Amino acid sequence: MSDTDPLVIFTPSGKRGRVPAGTSVLQAARNLGVDVDSVCGGHGICSKCMVRPAFGTHPKHGITAAEDALSPANAVERAYREKRPVKPGYRMSCQTQVLGDMVIDVPAESQVHKQVVRKAATDRVIEMDPATRAVYVEIAPADMHTPSGDWERVTAALSESWGLGDVAVSVAMLAEVQAALIAGGNAVTLALNTARAGRPRVVGVWPGFAEPALYGLAIDLGSTTIAAHLTDLSTGAVKASGGVMNPQIRFGEDLMSRVSYAMMTPGGAAEMTAAVREAIGTLATELAQEAGVGIEAIFEAVFVMNPVMHHLLLGLDPVPLGQAPFALATGAALDLSAREIGLSFAAEAQLYVLPLIAGHVGADAAAVALSEAPQEQEDLTLIVDVGTNAEILLGNRERVLACSSPTGPAFEGAQISSGQRAANGAIERVEIDPVTKEPRFRVIGIAQWSDEPAFARKSTRTGVTGICGSGIIEAVAEMRIAGIMDANGLIGSPEAVGSPRCRKVGRTYEYVLHDASATGGPVISITQADVRAIQLAKSALYAGARLLMDEFGVDRVERVVLAGAFGAHISPKHAMVLGMIPDCPLEKVTSAGNAAGTGAQIALLNLGARRRIEALVHEITKVETAIEPRFQEHFVAANAIPHATDPFSGLRALVPLPEPSFNAGPDSGRATRRARRRR
Amino acid sequence: MSDTDPLVIFTPSGKRGRVPAGTSVLQAARNLGVDVDSVCGGHGICSKCMVRPAFGTHPKHGITAAEDALSPANAVERAYREKRPVKPGYRMSCQTQVLGDMVIDVPAESQVHKQVVRKAATDRVIEMDPATRAVYVEIAPADMHTPSGDWERVTAALSESWGLGDVAVSVAMLAEVQAALIAGGNAVTLALNTARAGRPRVVGVWPGFAEPALYGLAIDLGSTTIAAHLTDLSTGAVKASGGVMNPQIRFGEDLMSRVSYAMMTPGGAAEMTAAVREAIGTLATELAQEAGVGIEAIFEAVFVMNPVMHHLLLGLDPVPLGQAPFALATGAALDLSAREIGLSFAAEAQLYVLPLIAGHVGADAAAVALSEAPQEQEDLTLIVDVGTNAEILLGNRERVLACSSPTGPAFEGAQISSGQRAANGAIERVEIDPVTKEPRFRVIGIAQWSDEPAFARKSTRTGVTGICGSGIIEAVAEMRIAGIMDANGLIGSPEAVGSPRCRKVGRTYEYVLHDASATGGPVISITQADVRAIQLAKSALYAGARLLMDEFGVDRVERVVLAGAFGAHISPKHAMVLGMIPDCPLEKVTSAGNAAGTGAQIALLNLGARRRIEALVHEITKVETAIEPRFQEHFVAANAIPHATDPFSGLRALVPLPEPSFNAGPDSGRATRRARRRR
Repeated sequence: MSDTDPLVIFTPSGKRGRVPAGTSVLQAARNLGVDVDSVCGGHGICSKCMVRPAFGTHPKHGITAAEDALSPANAVERAYREKRPVKPGYRMSCQTQVLGDMVIDVPAESQVHKQVVRKAATDRVIEMDPATRAVYVEIAPADMHTPSGDWERVTAALSESWGLGDVAVSVAMLAEVQAALIAGGNAVTLALNTARAGRPRVVGVWPGFAEPALYGLAIDLGSTTIAAHLTDLSTGAVKASGGVMNPQIRFGEDLMSRVSYAMMTPGGAAEMTAAVREAIGTLATELAQEAGVGIEAIFEAVFVMNPVMHHLLLGLDPVPLGQAPFALATGAALDLSAREIGLSFAAEAQLYVLPLIAGHVGADAAAVALSEAPQEQEDLTLIVDVGTNAEILLGNRERVLACSSPTGPAFEGAQISSGQRAANGAIERVEIDPVTKEPRFRVIGIAQWSDEPAFARKSTRTGVTGICGSGIIEAVAEMRIAGIMDANGLIGSPEAVGSPRCRKVGRTYEYVLHDASATGGPVISITQADVRAIQLAKSALYAGARLLMDEFGVDRVERVVLAGAFGAHISPKHAMVLGMIPDCPLEKVTSAGNAAGTGAQIALLNLGARRRIEALVHEITKVETAIEPRFQEHFVAANAIPHATDPFSGLRALVPLPEPSFNAGPDSGRATRRARRRR
Repeated sequence: MSDTDPLVIFTPSGKRGRVPAGTSVLQAARNLGVDVDSVCGGHGICSKCMVRPAFGTHPKHGITAAEDALSPANAVERAYREKRPVKPGYRMSCQTQVLGDMVIDVPAESQVHKQVVRKAATDRVIEMDPATRAVYVEIAPADMHTPSGDWERVTAALSESWGLGDVAVSVAMLAEVQAALIAGGNAVTLALNTARAGRPRVVGVWPGFAEPALYGLAIDLGSTTIAAHLTDLSTGAVKASGGVMNPQIRFGEDLMSRVSYAMMTPGGAAEMTAAVREAIGTLATELAQEAGVGIEAIFEAVFVMNPVMHHLLLGLDPVPLGQAPFALATGAALDLSAREIGLSFAAEAQLYVLPLIAGHVGADAAAVALSEAPQEQEDLTLIVDVGTNAEILLGNRERVLACSSPTGPAFEGAQISSGQRAANGAIERVEIDPVTKEPRFRVIGIAQWSDEPAFARKSTRTGVTGICGSGIIEAVAEMRIAGIMDANGLIGSPEAVGSPRCRKVGRTYEYVLHDASATGGPVISITQADVRAIQLAKSALYAGARLLMDEFGVDRVERVVLAGAFGAHISPKHAMVLGMIPDCPLEKVTSAGNAAGTGAQIALLNLGARRRIEALVHEITKVETAIEPRFQEHFVAANAIPHATDPFSGLRALVPLPEPSFNAGPDSGRATRRARRRR
């Protein structure tokens, strides 16, 4: 290249260099390492390589781009423009020659590695680097004088046009390539997946030039809920999102009861495996329908899940996970075909399973780490993914620790007398007046609080049907703040509390939140058993966090991130009043939404992220709660609300907590009688 | 290593070197690059590493091996000897330490790369280097303080004990590994296949130490016959051999009629694909039964076949092979799983398909090249693989050419009036007395000729049922030698020939070879139509060979190899009298038996051979008979017996050929009458 060759500057990258006059803009971009997309390989068919020339004077770059610095539209480009609309000022980079100094903008939609954004604690910016992409090739016709197979000519073209070598293909795809070349006149569009050790694999075939829908599923397979996002692998756009209940619930509410079922029932594990695979298939079909494509448009899926779900999905035996040493069949990241586990997506769809961290710390925790990146934080950050099983991560730039804690399903509204899943009509927020002890609440589906005028009318539509996970947390915390319940979790009598909403039920008291019995509706109350269930769950969560803090050698954390589908709805203040999480400035407690799901989406769209999390899981120190004696101590101490020994002084400075004692209640009365008898 | 360290010499390799005293014999062998087998990895379990120490004075090597130059049997070896017999003088090399200078013989059965022999034109020596082998590993128990999956600990052990990295495994095999480790007490035997790009893949799993039957099938899939050898992949021993008719015959006798069926019948190709896959499954089941194993003991299969069979087996469309440019879907060697094409061997059995040479020259020809190695011959060698389609190779160290020629099934006894397949009762050899014109023959299953005393009695058991391929060739050639038939292939009248065995049938004559009609048996004769069928077949074969000779620029070949299951039975003299093959000294015409099948066996047992044939097919010059105008000329000239223009002087010097002319026969009479009328 000589100094008199045209100078080309690409924005926004700022990459610049001289190219011989007559070089295509696409080629110039490739020479200079500028990311410009192309599916058709420069044949002027796909329009993925559209760029925006910036004519005129560019003082910043020290050049003037004349109108004749680019060649006018040639026959190929004109033909394209006659058939399809092109944005004003855009040019087809593969058909346009550089003739003079030029500044050329590459719009985001023309970049392969464009960035997309996902909502999380903070917005996650994901650089697109998907495993699956489409390429178009034209091949020489068959020539019997130099015989070579169709596939050999396709691989030669893939090597020449795309620099791809050693492409894997199944015989089923070979048959499709053969047919597509006949139908497409020696031209074919292939979908290639490069997830397995970088070796491209043919996963889809279309005759001639095609713009196939290449969709991927990011699946967060939880014990209770299966959540999935269907994403366009070319643009990164989410096309449909949804969830279904995990049908394994009928075999056991929590992980350990499912392991027991597998252990006690011959064929039980296989039964659960079949159930969850079928549910995933149904969910995928629904999401594809919603996005207006067939299920065969799904070329990839990424899974995050805890170890028991992992084993049950893959057809591995979960029984060893039920007892020490909690031996995993494998914890490594897995690349496999959808067919291997009986999922009917595209015939050659590929799956990626994020690595597990340990026998009780799953790929869901790994996905949270991928999304929340504790290893990059300055602040010592505690991340709790709240679900039936809580995944807990604690770390900063120096070190990351992880454990899992069996909280049970109380936080999700299960095992709660008026509990229900988060749906229209469920109480999700609660406030109790500390003076009158009267509550007000909000239900899902209605913007107003229950004491606002419009509520009565609007609630005739949804009803007030129960209380969901975030509602029960707020209710119990508000009862504590209002002095309806003491630090031991005992609900007071109507006399002691001074409210008729406290009612005796058997030997204990309940607090009535909503009574519609006069009109045949439900009575929604918080019972003593409900408080006990929440105490057990929050003690397990807090004990897990404390164990990690011990291991880290700290007794305070600097930041708390609440993750999990349900984490998004927890009020930080109420979580801290309950003592679910350690004392920490409230403004430092944030919600990450479904961080595991976000991690799955990141892994779906970016191959580099898969390598990052595979490396990170080896760096994370695993702490096994089940065999750590201090876990029991922490668990017992965490039973009090907020805590028996940890001062929670930061919280108490903000939220005054009265300290009544309801030992005179029937529960303690019994204890006192028993104690007397023993004397 | 110092000069005072013990010197160890291994025979038969002659490799020698010093090792520190106390080194195990197995380790010493590995240090010195001596090939000693081991499945258990040195745990004293498998006994594959047995060696034979040679004590005493070895003047040739300049050392004396004292009785105490090896450690006595330790507890592990003694325990093994109590349970199982050990050949006298053999020691377990992994348990025996070198203490002084020693000569140690490694018997063939203890070598991984031992040599096995296959009968072919000359005995083929195959070095064992199979893709599938068993390895045993013991792993550390699961430890929850340093959590790692079962599979991660297995791969660590495979790396440490066997130097294997990056082992591929399906989730189904992962589940079996998990179960086997529990049943086997953290020990497992794996079958690994390294055919795909050298990356080991788990194809079988057994708890603890096991000596699994690892069998492989070498399959020669012909248009008419499917032949297979079931081979022990550890020893190279053939355990069972057999064949079945290709059931596709019901869709068309020859290749082109099957291509037509695929073209004309919707779903026809799929129907033929299903039929052949089913037949292979049945054959494999029978062979496994004969060998006393289940079909799940088959871990590998190698296929050789012509392009049409290739496409039909793999589910590719054969229609493009029916017309120029004869475009193959692929001609490359293929590694795939048996499951991909619906073959039920071991669940993870792997297949290897030899490369095709061109649109009409198949993997069967490639296998013949692998077996007969024309590229290594000093003599210019013509190899004809005689079947329904003939594969023809011509070459020497300089160059190899190949073509295929559509001979049709006449050589296999099809389309012949009394033709039958080679089975008991079929006439396979014929002699005709040139003076009396009386024949004698031999039938399959009886050692005596038909004019020997014992024949009559013995033939009551088998009968004389028809004439097979080699019988028809000998019969027609003998008729030519005896002057019963002229050079144009016309059979003479009883008067002209001077024998009542010539009988008029319609407008032509037939020669009666055997007449059992008096006792209700068959009349076996050679009709004029039979001779015409043979003439067409042999003309096609000869024309193909001539085309290659033209291309090579020669008019003589130095050696002829007759290959094909049927080639083994052809008498060279009779083949040359017929003019099937060019004139050549008779002692230079040899039979290679089923060279394609031998090639398949070589590829089954030796990975290097696969790489060799993959390279060789690119070096072979393909000649396309269907589009070469000279093929027609050669075909017409080859119609005469032995040939209209080629002198066959070498043959005539050995075998006098009378030159009667039966133009006065009914055929020519008609021609003469027609000619008269035209005047």
